[in-house]
Amino acid sequence: MKAFFMNDYGEGAHPLVMQRLMETNMEHTCGYGLDEYSLRAQELIREKIGQPQAQVHMMTGGTSANMVALSAFMRPYEAVVSAQTGHINVHETGAVEGSGHKVLIASSSEGKVLADGVRAVCAGHTDEHMVHPRVLYISQPTEVGTVYSLAEMRALRAACDDCGLILFVDGARLGSALTSSECDMTLCDLAALADCFYIGGTKNGLLFGEAMVIVNPALQKDFRYMIKNRGGMIAKGRLCGVMFLAALEHDDYFAWARHANAMADIVREGMVRGGVEFFQRTATNQIFPVLSRAQEKALAERFMFEHWADLPDGRVAVRFVTSWATQEADARLLADALEAL
Amino acid sequence: MKAFFMNDYGEGAHPLVMQRLMETNMEHTCGYGLDEYSLRAQELIREKIGQPQAQVHMMTGGTSANMVALSAFMRPYEAVVSAQTGHINVHETGAVEGSGHKVLIASSSEGKVLADGVRAVCAGHTDEHMVHPRVLYISQPTEVGTVYSLAEMRALRAACDDCGLILFVDGARLGSALTSSECDMTLCDLAALADCFYIGGTKNGLLFGEAMVIVNPALQKDFRYMIKNRGGMIAKGRLCGVMFLAALEHDDYFAWARHANAMADIVREGMVRGGVEFFQRTATNQIFPVLSRAQEKALAERFMFEHWADLPDGRVAVRFVTSWATQEADARLLADALEAL
Amino acid sequence: MKAFFMNDYGEGAHPLVMQRLMETNMEHTCGYGLDEYSLRAQELIREKIGQPQAQVHMMTGGTSANMVALSAFMRPYEAVVSAQTGHINVHETGAVEGSGHKVLIASSSEGKVLADGVRAVCAGHTDEHMVHPRVLYISQPTEVGTVYSLAEMRALRAACDDCGLILFVDGARLGSALTSSECDMTLCDLAALADCFYIGGTKNGLLFGEAMVIVNPALQKDFRYMIKNRGGMIAKGRLCGVMFLAALEHDDYFAWARHANAMADIVREGMVRGGVEFFQRTATNQIFPVLSRAQEKALAERFMFEHWADLPDGRVAVRFVTSWATQEADARLLADALEAL
Amino acid sequence: MKAFFMNDYGEGAHPLVMQRLMETNMEHTCGYGLDEYSLRAQELIREKIGQPQAQVHMMTGGTSANMVALSAFMRPYEAVVSAQTGHINVHETGAVEGSGHKVLIASSSEGKVLADGVRAVCAGHTDEHMVHPRVLYISQPTEVGTVYSLAEMRALRAACDDCGLILFVDGARLGSALTSSECDMTLCDLAALADCFYIGGTKNGLLFGEAMVIVNPALQKDFRYMIKNRGGMIAKGRLCGVMFLAALEHDDYFAWARHANAMADIVREGMVRGGVEFFQRTATNQIFPVLSRAQEKALAERFMFEHWADLPDGRVAVRFVTSWATQEADARLLADALEAL
Repeated sequence: MKAFFMNDYGEGAHPLVMQRLMETNMEHTCGYGLDEYSLRAQELIREKIGQPQAQVHMMTGGTSANMVALSAFMRPYEAVVSAQTGHINVHETGAVEGSGHKVLIASSSEGKVLADGVRAVCAGHTDEHMVHPRVLYISQPTEVGTVYSLAEMRALRAACDDCGLILFVDGARLGSALTSSECDMTLCDLAALADCFYIGGTKNGLLFGEAMVIVNPALQKDFRYMIKNRGGMIAKGRLCGVMFLAALEHDDYFAWARHANAMADIVREGMVRGGVEFFQRTATNQIFPVLSRAQEKALAERFMFEHWADLPDGRVAVRFVTSWATQEADARLLADALEAL
Repeated sequence: MKAFFMNDYGEGAHPLVMQRLMETNMEHTCGYGLDEYSLRAQELIREKIGQPQAQVHMMTGGTSANMVALSAFMRPYEAVVSAQTGHINVHETGAVEGSGHKVLIASSSEGKVLADGVRAVCAGHTDEHMVHPRVLYISQPTEVGTVYSLAEMRALRAACDDCGLILFVDGARLGSALTSSECDMTLCDLAALADCFYIGGTKNGLLFGEAMVIVNPALQKDFRYMIKNRGGMIAKGRLCGVMFLAALEHDDYFAWARHANAMADIVREGMVRGGVEFFQRTATNQIFPVLSRAQEKALAERFMFEHWADLPDGRVAVRFVTSWATQEADARLLADALEAL
Repeated sequence: MKAFFMNDYGEGAHPLVMQRLMETNMEHTCGYGLDEYSLRAQELIREKIGQPQAQVHMMTGGTSANMVALSAFMRPYEAVVSAQTGHINVHETGAVEGSGHKVLIASSSEGKVLADGVRAVCAGHTDEHMVHPRVLYISQPTEVGTVYSLAEMRALRAACDDCGLILFVDGARLGSALTSSECDMTLCDLAALADCFYIGGTKNGLLFGEAMVIVNPALQKDFRYMIKNRGGMIAKGRLCGVMFLAALEHDDYFAWARHANAMADIVREGMVRGGVEFFQRTATNQIFPVLSRAQEKALAERFMFEHWADLPDGRVAVRFVTSWATQEADARLLADALEAL
Repeated sequence: MKAFFMNDYGEGAHPLVMQRLMETNMEHTCGYGLDEYSLRAQELIREKIGQPQAQVHMMTGGTSANMVALSAFMRPYEAVVSAQTGHINVHETGAVEGSGHKVLIASSSEGKVLADGVRAVCAGHTDEHMVHPRVLYISQPTEVGTVYSLAEMRALRAACDDCGLILFVDGARLGSALTSSECDMTLCDLAALADCFYIGGTKNGLLFGEAMVIVNPALQKDFRYMIKNRGGMIAKGRLCGVMFLAALEHDDYFAWARHANAMADIVREGMVRGGVEFFQRTATNQIFPVLSRAQEKALAERFMFEHWADLPDGRVAVRFVTSWATQEADARLLADALEAL
């Protein structure tokens, strides 16, 4: 069987999470996320981020989380600013536009939105013949695995303050960012800077689920109505509560993410030893080597991974992803294979 | 601890389902419902309904299932016809309207849409100053637990054919309908009559999930785009595949529903013995007694159930719900309590 | 040629309006309603209603006016309450739902929403599984030509205050209501009670145009963005300014409406003399006689009017409409014909 | 008084159009564009374009026309391809996104979408995680006044055929394009290539109105429902019929456009004589000189025009627009002023 580096959602849940689901399976609770497990998970998250006024809501997935929150925060003529590579701009089948809002593109570098780019977009939207920029959407880490530094995010926060924008952070892979060797930001730092962000569960050990944290009280009103209106509220809401409690109460969530990054480090080290070029340098759980087509084909016989892009020079970029479930032996196998290319 | 008759989604999943999730938990599969488990579950459903051309898609919940399908089938000015009590009309926070479509109300009896009512709605919508009726939405069983007979559903099908309507059947509690003593319709009958319907998992033993069956090929195009566009596609789509396989491969799904109905029968028999009036007669897993306020209060000390309606004469209607998880001892306890009122 | 009683939009504009359009035709102004004529018309309206803080916007037609305003005032899960007969509910091809919002039906009498009906709707919408009522939509006069009294509208205002609703008044035929013999309300009264209303031009002497008056400052933000976003802003916005100035600066608008009502009175008197039954009693410019089919056919040879409804007893209801353009001779001809039936 | 070169919608209508409105003002017709004038105008347009099967609908303005048509032609997950500078992308306050659809950007040159750019966008949208490109939106002339040649439009048509795209042409200034010295395309050529296009009236002599021509029968179904659903249908629809008849029956429409272009030619010749640089070369009724700030200020004392862009070198681009209403004396005055800079 081939070693799996295709993505970070190829398995079920971390065994600890499954164990908690089994233990609580036959308990009766009320539905739709109003149960004790969900309430405790929400409280735990508020404590961990140091924002007692924050609201926490459990969402079923990333696209739903982004679309529900963004459409909750904007009036019909308002728009969200994103990097060209932003998940909402490319990989959500127009869900944000489907809820009625334009995605405006700000200039970016290595997948990271530039504060000046944000200001330029806002400066260029001056009257009622154009949409009104209202939210800045970023993800931490970015779509291409890079990580915003604390200084960079502060600069974005300042740009948002100057331009009257809400700062929304997609945290589908937040664990991987916060435990990255390149990250100088804590969860509390993030929570202090963002108006709203989420802690992604799907890609870090849960069956599904993203914990949406609305830090800014001005954005909290009637959010449960929004979730239901957009089809994002599930009956057995307690599942997310149970799973996030399992992941967060002893900080296993971060341990899993650290493991994923460590596995990625092993792979990256193999690349460096082998002199394999990076399509995009990252310090999180996604690795983007540049390969010849022959190399890609050879690796594909032993490893599962994703073809990322065709390069102008005939070569290709591919993507390897590690996760809480990646075995160290597999990572070393891949590292050796890359080294030996 | 009080016996639980609050709803049919108060626990996790049936132990058999959990077992399968555990067994497959560490397997690697591709995401978004394109894995082998999902494909096998889809094929199994096609076989069971006798419609080899049908498309099957796994949805995360009822509101999402309804909204995604209805908005996939309609152009912006088209409307869906429903009973006043229809779930889409009352209990989905305007999700259908949120996707841009009006819900038109047809006359109904005991929660069941009347074929003549459908024809009357269509006859009354004649030009471009009014919406154009395009879909008939019904649920089997209905929102109030009643069951369409085969003859009734054929009459609705005929009305749909005459009026150019798509027949869409919400099957959130389909198991309970099909195994009801009052039901003279098989799953194959339903599949032969409906253009689209779904087999509800959330309320019959799964953690979550509804299997959307698009029988009519004219409605199948690009449905996965629609799911994603509306935020209804989850990364670990194989979960639904695994769960529906567990539920359906040996027809446990129907056994669970039959159990829920049997438990409801026990409760109903207690009501009959005690001379307790029915707010709405049903032969499925929802029971609606009429009680005095004192009786409601007394029962609430020992049982968990839902207050349903205040009646003009000062009495109340309440709702008891049974499920795959209801213990026979609890059902008998409730039956005795109702008998002794 | 048949005498025209089909509707109140069958001609162009009142000659006075056309004259002003001709006089100003070759003047250069800036576009999109920011010109001097539009500003003066807005100021004039503010003066006439006694609400200096009000915002006035020129809209191209009733459906656009209703949809733009309602979608400006609501968040996605919020709903508007209307009479069953409300224009937004029946005759706008789902424009309000097309903008994402449910129309909830409150009980009504003679086309007039009842305050208790409003309270009942709000009382029945209690949690996030249902839409949240946010706006009360009424029209003055109603769809069936009846007029709210000052007391009735105050009762609705009180219900809105109690329930947290915005009071929105569709004034497509506002002139006819305010100059009706049955009306005890002034334009200032209306402006003091409503959060938002409009003064309809299309049906009272203009080529097109409705003057939207947003009385409540909390609803005024960015309304021009909303108009543009919904496709309701025209380049030569000054046309509405010129036309409303023509209509309002010497109160001709009300004279025209008074004329329409007077013509309707003549027709009604004929009906009374002839003992013709009213389908719906009105004191505005719409008249609804009940006729036999033979009578309808006979009248149709000499008059243009609209078939309104088939009655259960085999008779029909028809609608005659008068306007600023109705000739007294034609009204007398119709009155005589009705008397002689 | 300053000479007016601000835009091509600064006056009312061409006197001939006003005359026809006056002549027909007191005639009674049925409403909503079903009158004889509208039918005759539609028939006339079908004859002129040589497409007897085409549907023609009168729209109130450009943004409404674009949004109604595009949302009629697409399912929710489908997207429209446009140049970055496209009116729908920049100057419609997100109306297209407000109707639920993403605008995708294809590479362009001088405001003209490149066929290869269209193919590249389509090639990059391959699965249900991304929107599905469905319409190519172009305008003739473009937003910056340039004109597609017949060869260029045929290349776009071929790209559309290869990619399964509908070709939609915004003709807000179509007259100016078709009568431009650089245009080698007839109205019939355009109609033979486009699936849908419109003949803009607002910017070429009408009070308002765009004649939407749906050439492709597959796109015609229920379009009047769409117009009404989006708030774009006016009661006195005959106004557009009367105005388009006036403009088209003796081809005055093209004479007016030719006049506008001739006036622009005079201005351009002055620029050439004066050696004034073009920001964007055009052969239609928009002229974009590059000026120093001092020159801009000096000209602004005698002429009304629009500031277009700040250039990196400190200079500015401005826009002069001519129209059917531009006086030759004013054009010569401006030409002289530009020559003398």
